[in-house]
Amino acid sequence: MKVKIGVSNRHVHLSESDFKKLFNSDKTLEVVKELTQPGEFASNLKVTLKTGKSVIENVRVLGPLRSYTQVEISKTDAYKLGLNPPVRESGDVLNSEDITIIGDNEVTIPSCCILASRHIHATNEDIKKYNLDPTKKYSVRVLGEKGGIFDNVSVKVSDKYYFEMHIDTDDANAHLLENGSEGFIINE
Amino acid sequence: MKVKIGVSNRHVHLSESDFKKLFNSDKTLEVVKELTQPGEFASNLKVTLKTGKSVIENVRVLGPLRSYTQVEISKTDAYKLGLNPPVRESGDVLNSEDITIIGDNEVTIPSCCILASRHIHATNEDIKKYNLDPTKKYSVRVLGEKGGIFDNVSVKVSDKYYFEMHIDTDDANAHLLENGSEGFIINE
Repeated sequence: MKVKIGVSNRHVHLSESDFKKLFNSDKTLEVVKELTQPGEFASNLKVTLKTGKSVIENVRVLGPLRSYTQVEISKTDAYKLGLNPPVRESGDVLNSEDITIIGDNEVTIPSCCILASRHIHATNEDIKKYNLDPTKKYSVRVLGEKGGIFDNVSVKVSDKYYFEMHIDTDDANAHLLENGSEGFIINE
Repeated sequence: MKVKIGVSNRHVHLSESDFKKLFNSDKTLEVVKELTQPGEFASNLKVTLKTGKSVIENVRVLGPLRSYTQVEISKTDAYKLGLNPPVRESGDVLNSEDITIIGDNEVTIPSCCILASRHIHATNEDIKKYNLDPTKKYSVRVLGEKGGIFDNVSVKVSDKYYFEMHIDTDDANAHLLENGSEGFIINE
């Protein structure tokens, strides 16, 4: 059961109110590049992430705006920034890490920074076709010189999704994967 | 079959002749911290790694001096530096990446930069006790929220070794492991 892999670099999703705090009123969120998940896009805007320990510059804001602000980083980034974000599904930001974001203005946003859990985007048709249970976690095998298995991969279902597994840059670099690499869902 | 995990951050091993090129004659390689493998140590000296694309500062020189110079980095480091080092066993540096090292002096060292392959240090007694074949590669399971399996783990045998699996920071961060974490060797 083959699945294409998409690698998510560190990025930021913004709520409308945080967008307005971070950027001057002449700024708009424009599509620079469509992402593989329909409707999602890399925007024209970049921000700096800042903590008491360090900064990471040039972090892409993704669009469209959401109902919550969420900063997704890797564990490698977390060490650099001195944070300990929990592993979470997208949107589940309660009691995650606070972080300061710098756009045109500097704003500290409480409870927004997570490590994104590994997940597969699937339509209801994909779920049926591959006999997947969205309430279960799966393991996904990857091949190559630094191959292996990712455990605890969740399945997110929407009929607008493109069938794809998302991992962060630590997972990708550890196993020498890149956008378009292939994984194999273990479904016993 | 439990094995302790040791995480190797980027580091440099130097030959005597490269050591003399890099450092002024008043410098000596001194033990700052003994490593878990007997005889190996973190030294007092740090260097900068430099390529046409970027630099990484404060990279620790390990001791003692070896018969070859070897720079071990992660894939994350490799992207930053614009290099594509091969995955190799320690000492196998033929046709690996060139890199410039800056100590007291700046020296470009050909064919020295690798991604270290995952490996287990074992004594002959360990090999017998755990029924391991040093000519084979093993898979090692790790647990936790970002658990999984590392494939292609080699076994290096010496009676002076301490039984331990070494992985790089990408492997560690992808699977949320740190020094002293545990893995389980799969031996079917």
